[in-house]
Amino acid sequence: MKVEAKLRAMGLELPANPKVMANYLTAVRTGNLVFLSGHGPLREDGTFITGKVGADLTIEEGNEAARKAAILLLSSLKAEIGDLDKVRRVVKLLGMVNCLPDFVDQAKVVNGASDLLVEVFAERGRHARSSGGMNALPLNIAVEIEMIVEVEG
Amino acid sequence: MKVEAKLRAMGLELPANPKVMANYLTAVRTGNLVFLSGHGPLREDGTFITGKVGADLTIEEGNEAARKAAILLLSSLKAEIGDLDKVRRVVKLLGMVNCLPDFVDQAKVVNGASDLLVEVFAERGRHARSSGGMNALPLNIAVEIEMIVEVEG
Amino acid sequence: MKVEAKLRAMGLELPANPKVMANYLTAVRTGNLVFLSGHGPLREDGTFITGKVGADLTIEEGNEAARKAAILLLSSLKAEIGDLDKVRRVVKLLGMVNCLPDFVDQAKVVNGASDLLVEVFAERGRHARSSGGMNALPLNIAVEIEMIVEVEG
Repeated sequence: MKVEAKLRAMGLELPANPKVMANYLTAVRTGNLVFLSGHGPLREDGTFITGKVGADLTIEEGNEAARKAAILLLSSLKAEIGDLDKVRRVVKLLGMVNCLPDFVDQAKVVNGASDLLVEVFAERGRHARSSGGMNALPLNIAVEIEMIVEVEG
Repeated sequence: MKVEAKLRAMGLELPANPKVMANYLTAVRTGNLVFLSGHGPLREDGTFITGKVGADLTIEEGNEAARKAAILLLSSLKAEIGDLDKVRRVVKLLGMVNCLPDFVDQAKVVNGASDLLVEVFAERGRHARSSGGMNALPLNIAVEIEMIVEVEG
Repeated sequence: MKVEAKLRAMGLELPANPKVMANYLTAVRTGNLVFLSGHGPLREDGTFITGKVGADLTIEEGNEAARKAAILLLSSLKAEIGDLDKVRRVVKLLGMVNCLPDFVDQAKVVNGASDLLVEVFAERGRHARSSGGMNALPLNIAVEIEMIVEVEG
């Protein structure tokens, strides 16, 4: 199935390519790699999910936030490459989780993004990943996720 | 205008390529990409701007620190590739801001680096970016910024 | 000397390729680059070194943890490329140190990884690097290190 048909079958709608917070682009392509900026968890109403996971949000809510960040990443990726079927491979994620010093379940949170990508792209969606706990994130977003993707030449 | 003439017109002088803090290089080239290490905000007197933005430093001072880190990145880039006119594209920044848990203006801080790069390289300077809040940075530097650049073959 | 003979001469044994914590791969190759996931400090007994460096662990213990993370990275790299002699260049590390807000010796900690890589690969092991202080890491690991490596075509 085509990736975008798959997204529709999953009931997912890509949000409009987000305006960025500041003086940067959502994605830059160099050769066959697209480097995507850190993206936050955008709600359907256009606001971001905010707060510290483990304090203001449960792990499950953090996981859902990471899923939303991944959907926003796909939106920016589509804006950059035109057609998500050009994705050869999701290469790497960096998942930053807004949390308190005693929070240790970053992996369960960032899985929200990883699971979505594997669901959408199957084997091509499997990626390397780092996850860390951040004491703070821009606008107090709950998670911020950046992505590197290999695309067709 | 040539990039280095532009820097002079902006009144900017690139500091000598900094000695690094530890066992690493300021930059490594692979193919057409140069990966630059995390750079701190070096003052003209050779010391680093230190402290937590939002507590020890204002947002404006943090923004100026990010600008200084970007200037230092350009210095290391020039040392690596010889001539800044070889820059095809600034691909990506990661901006790490030393701050307290309630600080949410990382984007305004890291703009100090992004604005400088766009000022120097114009369209070629526009990049993808992630910004995060760090509870601590090496030597207590106020910001640390790493960069990926595409250069001529 | 071949890299794996060198490892043996150093008395180092690569641990079995670690099962990851969540839905991701330890490494993904794209072109001549291998992007490795954030790896933690695995002990010989299969447990991770945990705690905040500067509080629960000394700088020296943190340095040893970073060294162990680098050994685990080499294990994952070998699993990906088959033979460590295919390494052309260690390109870049990101070293994340679990610490308190007043800790400033991240560079000394992450040197544990950098020193090991230079010891194993000599000039090919010299890399760009960023190091930051994290308020928390997955499973409370003391350090998490990710790596980009250039390999033979």
